[in-house]
Amino acid sequence: MKYPGKANSEYKPTISYGNRGMTLEEDINLSNDFYRDTDRAVIYKKPTPITISKVEYNSNKERVIKEAYFKIPSTTDYNGIYRGKYIDFEAKETKLKKFPLINIHNHQIKHLEKVAKHGAIAFLIVRFTTLNETYYLDIKDLTYYLENVKKSFISYDYFNEKGYLLKERYNPRIDYLSVIDDIYFKGDLYEKDK
Amino acid sequence: MKYPGKANSEYKPTISYGNRGMTLEEDINLSNDFYRDTDRAVIYKKPTPITISKVEYNSNKERVIKEAYFKIPSTTDYNGIYRGKYIDFEAKETKLKKFPLINIHNHQIKHLEKVAKHGAIAFLIVRFTTLNETYYLDIKDLTYYLENVKKSFISYDYFNEKGYLLKERYNPRIDYLSVIDDIYFKGDLYEKDK
Repeated sequence: MKYPGKANSEYKPTISYGNRGMTLEEDINLSNDFYRDTDRAVIYKKPTPITISKVEYNSNKERVIKEAYFKIPSTTDYNGIYRGKYIDFEAKETKLKKFPLINIHNHQIKHLEKVAKHGAIAFLIVRFTTLNETYYLDIKDLTYYLENVKKSFISYDYFNEKGYLLKERYNPRIDYLSVIDDIYFKGDLYEKDK
Repeated sequence: MKYPGKANSEYKPTISYGNRGMTLEEDINLSNDFYRDTDRAVIYKKPTPITISKVEYNSNKERVIKEAYFKIPSTTDYNGIYRGKYIDFEAKETKLKKFPLINIHNHQIKHLEKVAKHGAIAFLIVRFTTLNETYYLDIKDLTYYLENVKKSFISYDYFNEKGYLLKERYNPRIDYLSVIDDIYFKGDLYEKDK
């Protein structure tokens, strides 16, 4: 258990974890731990892609990577399954009051569009760190913006208008699956997986 | 294009790539490249999980990992989406005429069972290298074996009886999605994603 509170109790935290400098990545990882432990979804962050060029054995006969390089990721950071659907997303922070598109690789956007075409639930999570606000932006709204607004950034107002504000809580830290329930499963009777 | 043949032509290879010592991982990666290029599925191998302990800058101001360790993977190596379904699998080779369970981490089996419970298509691909035979074994048959046969390995005969032999071809190298069509979409009219 890496998230605050206990998996088998009622998830009442004993200490406040409110905004004490956790990164978006940490918040999402804790949320995914919580979702998995409560069997709501199985979503993981992928490992960092690297190219290994030198491996040696240390005195414990353990393999140690002695030289490796960071690779440009071919896909997004997070994927998994929720309510039978394939989930795929990328998460980014920005200090600005807009989201510069340089923050996300173009082929990552193409990847999100491609999996969405195959039936995935695909989206961005963007945190405006100076405002302390985190938004869910669905791939369809991202695509719409890119096709219709020829700018090098996505405006904060667009997140405000088309995105979904993800409130910070204790468990899960950011409950992005509830937004997915609203967008993709509205009207469905929520049935927990047996 | 990393697989033999051309993406935009009829996939007629000019050289024979038959069994010239490609590993199962290489064959699966080429198959996944082919599936993606033909827009049949979006399935990737995850990067190798590592713990980075030292990063330096080289003379080109490039970040170089100078010390890192291999981690035990929490999940499986491959996942993605096919015909709207979440796909998740692990691939292993063995030189023996049985599959020793020590070749797969127990939590990887648990992971496959968990995602299957959430609606995924989950399975193992096992290659018997000395026989040059590669099998698809569905998670339900893996679970059945583990629960009913108390052995430290899965017998070759079980793969023969319950698994699906994956014939090696040019493109895709091993067409595991056709097996999925048979098991999961039998009777469906195959509709290519638009």
